[in-house]
This record gives sequence, structure tokens and C-alpha cells, in this order.
Amino acid sequence: MTEKMHRVVLARRPQGAPVDADFRYEEAAMPVPGEGEVLVKVSHMSLDPYMRGRMDDAKSYAKPVELDHTMEGGAVGEVIASNHPKYSVGDQVFGMFGWASHGCLNGRELRKLDPRLPITTALGVLGMPGFTGWYGLMEYGKPKAGETLVVAAATGPVGSMVGQMAKLLGLRVVGIAGGDDKCKMAKEKFGFDECLDHRAYADANALRAALKEVCPNGVDIYFENVAGKVLEAVLPLMNVGGRIPLCGMIAWYNAGALGGNMTGEKDNLPKMWRSILVNRLHVHGFIISDHFASFPDFLTDVAPRVAAGEIKVVEDVAQGLENAPKAFMNMLNGGNFGKQIVKI
Amino acid sequence: MTEKMHRVVLARRPQGAPVDADFRYEEAAMPVPGEGEVLVKVSHMSLDPYMRGRMDDAKSYAKPVELDHTMEGGAVGEVIASNHPKYSVGDQVFGMFGWASHGCLNGRELRKLDPRLPITTALGVLGMPGFTGWYGLMEYGKPKAGETLVVAAATGPVGSMVGQMAKLLGLRVVGIAGGDDKCKMAKEKFGFDECLDHRAYADANALRAALKEVCPNGVDIYFENVAGKVLEAVLPLMNVGGRIPLCGMIAWYNAGALGGNMTGEKDNLPKMWRSILVNRLHVHGFIISDHFASFPDFLTDVAPRVAAGEIKVVEDVAQGLENAPKAFMNMLNGGNFGKQIVKI
Repeated sequence: MTEKMHRVVLARRPQGAPVDADFRYEEAAMPVPGEGEVLVKVSHMSLDPYMRGRMDDAKSYAKPVELDHTMEGGAVGEVIASNHPKYSVGDQVFGMFGWASHGCLNGRELRKLDPRLPITTALGVLGMPGFTGWYGLMEYGKPKAGETLVVAAATGPVGSMVGQMAKLLGLRVVGIAGGDDKCKMAKEKFGFDECLDHRAYADANALRAALKEVCPNGVDIYFENVAGKVLEAVLPLMNVGGRIPLCGMIAWYNAGALGGNMTGEKDNLPKMWRSILVNRLHVHGFIISDHFASFPDFLTDVAPRVAAGEIKVVEDVAQGLENAPKAFMNMLNGGNFGKQIVKI
Repeated sequence: MTEKMHRVVLARRPQGAPVDADFRYEEAAMPVPGEGEVLVKVSHMSLDPYMRGRMDDAKSYAKPVELDHTMEGGAVGEVIASNHPKYSVGDQVFGMFGWASHGCLNGRELRKLDPRLPITTALGVLGMPGFTGWYGLMEYGKPKAGETLVVAAATGPVGSMVGQMAKLLGLRVVGIAGGDDKCKMAKEKFGFDECLDHRAYADANALRAALKEVCPNGVDIYFENVAGKVLEAVLPLMNVGGRIPLCGMIAWYNAGALGGNMTGEKDNLPKMWRSILVNRLHVHGFIISDHFASFPDFLTDVAPRVAAGEIKVVEDVAQGLENAPKAFMNMLNGGNFGKQIVKI
């Protein structure tokens, strides 16, 4: 009897927002670890907005997922067979196993996890999203006590890291999130000073007026992970010398905006470019995978804060690999509360 | 008999491109220097694109010129009366005298010039424009030998400084200018490797295709002083880790673009924002007046290069203060060759 595993593959490229038929849940042969390889039974996988980009056949910083190939992504699990001296059966590891029940990678491509921390933290607060928030804030945001920071997707794993770290450093932190419940979570759970529900404002102008109220001293750091209406609202409020670490633009991933067929944000390039000039802003695009050399510094700084409860963790766990596409589509619409994870 | 001086005042705010009637050439009473003040007979004044911005009644990094007040600007001349111990009759000085035949400022607001250098260099290559190019390139461009730099308005005082400094530092330098004559000047006089005539290309796509040919290794530094079609053409060619020092956007100053009534560059904000993200660009808006503390470093580095002929100087000198508005309008249309100066 050959053992089987399960996986979710990219069935076709989405037109706009992904739909069920863009994914296929299927059986596959269980891989057999070769020399130096380690076989892992995945317990939890991560769902992240960047995965939307990988579904398109467009030149980007990473290759697109090929049709009929396993959807990409990070996951955690337990070693069940090892041909690598550094790993033993039972070790907890992180690897890019994709949307799959099992994965087989060379030991060099794995990261061993500290078993004293909950395994799912390696996907969010102590994984790529948390690291993205921490690195972008510290390296490009250059936070100073007393300044004001704005971050959207405030209850997501990036935004909540940015906001909590900024609070620990003495900044005023204003979040933006979708819905009252998330705003409440940002303030009560994550300690943000204020959080605005972007759905409550018809357009960028209305959102800007509300932001102005809660940012009486302007905005020094706008941590950019959503773009769209929020970007339009925030830019004119930036103070001279403001910084914009730019790591994502989820509002535009599905909108057809990148192909030029959008509405709403028309005519705004000149105005935005002028804001950057007039307010001497520093905009730094970054892709976190360029900076993994700093990952140990991140863990050294942040893991103890997580262990001590100084940085809070909220996870939204969907059940079953076969439900990963639905959870992913829900997340792209902001339906998740906290870091989206799938329990395999 | 009361002595008279002449000046050009802002008669009304321009609608789009300035026209004659927006200016008024008039007589005024000769100022009498008070305590600490110095009276200067202006010999040459500078015309610069930033002056267009000062004519609008819009919030910007500097206050607008008030109606019926003297147009702002830097100028050079000779001291004819002094109540300041640092200045004597006959000294050559630079000051913000505006568009005027004479000026009276406190000695603290003046800069004494080295009489061994032609006085007009203090307006261009060794003045604010040259400093802008030098500072933006060195501080934000972070040039490295072997890289490729693109700069527009290549024969202007900013662009020609950027290109020449970059050549001295071992970069490949590609200019963009308006017309064959300017392209020839950029290559033959200023030593650029290539220079493209933006007028020869119908749109940003055509210009981009031509740029791609002359930038086979992509673009590492785009020194941004024009925006518009050039920005659109260059951005997709930027290499990962590219830098964009942003000091001006002359293409948009007159276009109504900043009010949102433009055509051509529609829908481009999302695409541009994506370029910054995907290619991890660093965009630094800067206003040179924030950085005058570095002016002595600039003179120390560049004045000897100018004296030695290592950095070339091209000036376009209009005759007579009364012709300053015409020369200014001509400059905004790219009609000048080299740094635009008016001999009073």
C-alpha cells in the first residue's frame, strides 16, 4: 500500500478575487525523503495576503505558482522521518511546505522551533508576518517616542506587531481596521490608542477627516500594508520628515488596479508624488525575504516579549486543509480575526 | 531727488502656465539700509522652476509670494552701502534679493562670494541648483561605480551637476532632455553616456522602450526633478534596491495635474506604488533648504572641480530685469540652454 498525502493546487489563475474553482484539493503520493531530506507531518499552515500575488502570472519579486502545482506557503509540523543529522523524529519545524498535509525538504531549508512556545506562533507573531512588522518599523520607520504612527489591517499579524512595538517604544498608535469588532480588539487587546473602522467612511476624504481628529499632531510614520483608500487618506496628513515603510498593498491585489482598470484612485499619482516631495517623506519599499539575516535579532527581541505576554497574540484557526481556499478568500475580504492559520 | 530701483512683482496668480499679465515691472523707492543692513546693486539674478510654485496660493514647503510683492529669488551683486561689520562696499555677495535691481538685507542673510570665481556661478553650478544635485545624489542616491543613473532636464543646472558628478564617480549616465541640441550638449559638453530627446517619443511607453536600449543593466538611480512622462517611463526599469532622490516635478507644475485635472498619467498610482514595493525602491523627497548646513561641504568638494574645468558650466543669460518674466516663461517651457540667469 502506498501512503497518500493531501494538497491544494492552483487549478487556474484568478480573474480578480479568487473563487473556489481556482483551487483543487487532491490526493498525492507521500514523498520519500532522499539524502539530507526530512519528512514532516504538517500540523498548521499559514495563510498570508502575499499568496494572492503568487497566483497571478505577473513579473514580481517571486515566481508565480505554476498551474497544477501546490499553493505556496509556510507551515509547521513534526518530523516523521529524517535523513538529516540536525533533525530527529518528533522535532517541531517550520518550512515552506505549501498548502499540504505533508512536506519533504532538505534539512537546510527548515528551521527548528523552540518547543516552549506554542507551535503556531512560528507562523504569525514570531514568523514572517511578525518579522515583517518588526523589521519595517525598526529599520525604515525609525520610531521615536512621542511620534504618531498609523497602521492599517491593525489586528492582522503585521499590523498588530507594528502597533504593539510602537506602543512599547512610546509612540501614539492609531490603527485602521474593518469593522467595530476589530477596532475594539485593536484597542482592548493590542493597546492601540485609537482605531478607525474604514468601512464607516464613504471615501478617502471622510476617512482623512476622522484620522485628523485622532492624529492632532499629524502622522510621522505610516506603515503601509494596504494602500487604496487608506493611503489616500493618510498621505496628506504626513508630517515633514515622515517615513513610509511599504510592505504590501492588499487593497489593490484584487481590484484590477495594477492592470490599470480601477476606479476611485484615479489622478492621484501627481498629488501623491507631490506629498512625498513637499513633506520630504522617505518611502522604503521592502520585501522581508531580503532581510532574513536579521531574523535572529528579531527573535531575540520579540520572543521574550511574547513569552511574557507583553506582545499579545490573536490567531484565527480554520479547520482542515480542504477548507484552506475558503479561509484564504475570507481573509482577503478581511473576514479573519487575527493571524489566519489552517489546522491540517 | 529720491533714488529709484526697479523690480518685478506678482500681479496676479497664474492659471496654468504664467503669462505676461501675471507679472508687473515697476519702479520703487531705493531702500535705505538700517542697522546691520547692507545695500546691494544686483548684477545677476537666478530663474528657477521652484518659483512657479511660489506663484500659487497653495500650502507648500514655503509661503507663496503675495500679490503685488516682489517675485522671490536668489541674486548676486556688489555691496554699495553697508551697516554690517562683515561687509564693505565692493564686496560680491549672494542674497535672496528677488527679481529686483537692488536689495537690502541684514548682513546675516548674505553670503560673501569668492572673487576668483565668476560671480554667476553662485547662482547655478555653485549655488542652490548645483547644491541640490550634489546633495541629492550623494545623500539619497548613494551612487556606486558601475551603476546606471538617469536624470532628466539633463542640461539644466541640477541635471548637469548630477550627471557630471555621477560620471566622475564611475556610473553610466543617461540623460533626458528636450530637443537634439540639448542632447548633444549633454553628451559633448557634460560627458553623459547617452541622452534621449523626450520630444521624440509620443508617450511614456515609447520613451521607456528607448531608455531600455540605452540602459541594458536597468536603472539604479533615478534622480527625479521632472516627473510626468519621464517618471512613468523610468519606474518600471528600476533595479531592485534602486534609489529615487526626489527634488522636483516640473512637468506637473503647470499642468493642472496637482489639482487632479490632468490627463495621461491617470490610473498610475497603484502601478507606481507597486514598483516601489516590488523593486524595494527608496524614494526620498527632499527640499534643499533643509540641508544648508552641508553647503560648505559642497563648496569644498565642487568649487575646485569647477575651477579646474572638471565640472563644466553652461549659462543662458537674458538681458535686462524687464525681460525676466519672458525668460522665466521660456525656461518653464524648456527654452533655455543651461542655467537661466538674468543680467540686470
